[in-house]
Amino acid sequence: MEQNFTYQQLADFCEAIFLKIGCSVEDAAVATKVLLSADLRGVDSHGVARLTGYVRLWEASRVNASPAMKIIHETLSTAVVDGDSGLGLVVAPYAMQVAIDKAAVAGTGWVSVQNSNHFGIAGYHAMMALPQNMIGIAMTNASALVAPTFSTEKLLGTNPIAVAIPAGKQAPFVADFATTTAANGKLEILQRKNKPTPEGWVQTKTGRSSTNAHELKEGGALLPLGGDREHGSHKGYMLGSVVDIFSAILSGANYGPWVPPFPAYVPMPENMPGKGIGHFFGAMRIDAFRPAQDFKDNMDQWIGRFKNAATVEGESSVVIPGEPEAAMEKERMLNGINLLDVVAEDLRVLGKRFAVDL
Amino acid sequence: MEQNFTYQQLADFCEAIFLKIGCSVEDAAVATKVLLSADLRGVDSHGVARLTGYVRLWEASRVNASPAMKIIHETLSTAVVDGDSGLGLVVAPYAMQVAIDKAAVAGTGWVSVQNSNHFGIAGYHAMMALPQNMIGIAMTNASALVAPTFSTEKLLGTNPIAVAIPAGKQAPFVADFATTTAANGKLEILQRKNKPTPEGWVQTKTGRSSTNAHELKEGGALLPLGGDREHGSHKGYMLGSVVDIFSAILSGANYGPWVPPFPAYVPMPENMPGKGIGHFFGAMRIDAFRPAQDFKDNMDQWIGRFKNAATVEGESSVVIPGEPEAAMEKERMLNGINLLDVVAEDLRVLGKRFAVDL
Repeated sequence: MEQNFTYQQLADFCEAIFLKIGCSVEDAAVATKVLLSADLRGVDSHGVARLTGYVRLWEASRVNASPAMKIIHETLSTAVVDGDSGLGLVVAPYAMQVAIDKAAVAGTGWVSVQNSNHFGIAGYHAMMALPQNMIGIAMTNASALVAPTFSTEKLLGTNPIAVAIPAGKQAPFVADFATTTAANGKLEILQRKNKPTPEGWVQTKTGRSSTNAHELKEGGALLPLGGDREHGSHKGYMLGSVVDIFSAILSGANYGPWVPPFPAYVPMPENMPGKGIGHFFGAMRIDAFRPAQDFKDNMDQWIGRFKNAATVEGESSVVIPGEPEAAMEKERMLNGINLLDVVAEDLRVLGKRFAVDL
Repeated sequence: MEQNFTYQQLADFCEAIFLKIGCSVEDAAVATKVLLSADLRGVDSHGVARLTGYVRLWEASRVNASPAMKIIHETLSTAVVDGDSGLGLVVAPYAMQVAIDKAAVAGTGWVSVQNSNHFGIAGYHAMMALPQNMIGIAMTNASALVAPTFSTEKLLGTNPIAVAIPAGKQAPFVADFATTTAANGKLEILQRKNKPTPEGWVQTKTGRSSTNAHELKEGGALLPLGGDREHGSHKGYMLGSVVDIFSAILSGANYGPWVPPFPAYVPMPENMPGKGIGHFFGAMRIDAFRPAQDFKDNMDQWIGRFKNAATVEGESSVVIPGEPEAAMEKERMLNGINLLDVVAEDLRVLGKRFAVDL
């Protein structure tokens, strides 16, 4: 059912493919690092399994493998980046670096991005801030799969938010989550197993509650975090909306139902108001607020207190955001990454077309 | 059951009380405006009904009516404000103004606040940015009523987030929400009516699911947005945590279970690691990213598209965040504000002590 690969095997393969489609050596390395960080951290839906999807976007001329990314507007603490239709895997780290550079001078840096594509896991980009003693923030919009509260129409993407916060002796706090009850990847797992979803994940095309994991194919929609109004879905809808506006309306990208789809076979929306997909990044220097050591000491106490909280029966501890992912990364770097047979086969077919072995 | 007051009646009363406890004329006016904005916008739990609570904090020497608020650290785009134990109703607008002033120069401004108290509704402070053509952000931590996912201990407050975004012809987008499934105010309404809560709002002291609106008095806890793990409560927990860290660890205020309680009769936590309650504010100049008119045109299209989305049966339209509150404000400014008899009586008792008529 599964095959094991070392990180290096998968990295060599991805880099070779990115080079074949025309990426520069630097861009191929960055795109590979971002893509595989998802596999390492256990977010399998956003990792190497998506490589074929990115290549298809390139084949459909929706991705430019050698983008001339540039800052098109800036102030001391802000910038708008034009991704020139590049891979989000390349555009996002470029833009996050701009935010970090701004923060080094102005205390904080905030970058909105137009004309990009899917950027992998948000957490990777947010975490770029950590070695600089900065807090990192990353978000992106995505094609519309989510119905706002009371609507039957899909108008928002799963629009994730990541926040990475340095600690001292403790591992950093890294939150990375879709603004829906469940990310699409979790739905796909249930689809493969032919299992129902819990209530509050999806609705039918007329907006009724459903537990059918295949509901989206029948005109249904994912639901905002909260599920329904009584359980706070309007809050998930507001969060997803803020991500959409910061990512796309601040930058001039497409928003709402006009965001370009990831699958290359899905036609582009009509009358698109902007350019490509939008992202939003932030970096805040800790010592722009307090001495970094004081901050880290408090973070250590915060994390220690939460980790040692009394738990409900059957649970060993409260989970600190980012801790399971960091443990997974260590484990997979050591023992390799298991891919489903179907994913490995898909990659080998891709490799054959480009004369790259896996 | 209810009594009607004009805005001006309540404003005159609040200002007089704030003056009696020693606020300056300016501070009394600001505190009144912030407090009553909650009543006007329909967030009755955070409005004039809390005036007695604020006075009790002053009587317990937990609130300083004439604070020497000051910036204790700053960079081009950041500041930390010491609220000198002032009313949050006064400290928050001061700090938000610092964020706005920073943004005018650096493009954005970000202010973390220590040594403050409860600041009323987050939305008021975020909305201060709107007339400046800026996006406003406001958040605060609060005393611990919320159990993180898997925990039986209350370690987080309802930690609200507000984001105010200007539009053009449309009314501004104003999101303002607690990071729990339901705010404490909603629970109090059910308590008064002796009604059960929906699932996912509260848990028992051992962490079992509950629908008892009185559960908190029996050692239970409010639940993070999502309710339980299967419905994404870890996301609500992460959001509430980010609010706590930005508000208190960036500023040097108290965090987690150490945040001072609002009711003056509840003893202060032991071994408090910081000063008072913490807030976090942000202001982003729209034209630090794009020409304001382009942004507003896109916002109008976004709002129009969402407002006109097809709805589930029985709902007339998708709600644009802030729209119901703006309509309520207009209505109450015109027709007055209804207070429950018990609230009005409470205010009259307070007034008698300070020789102020209502």
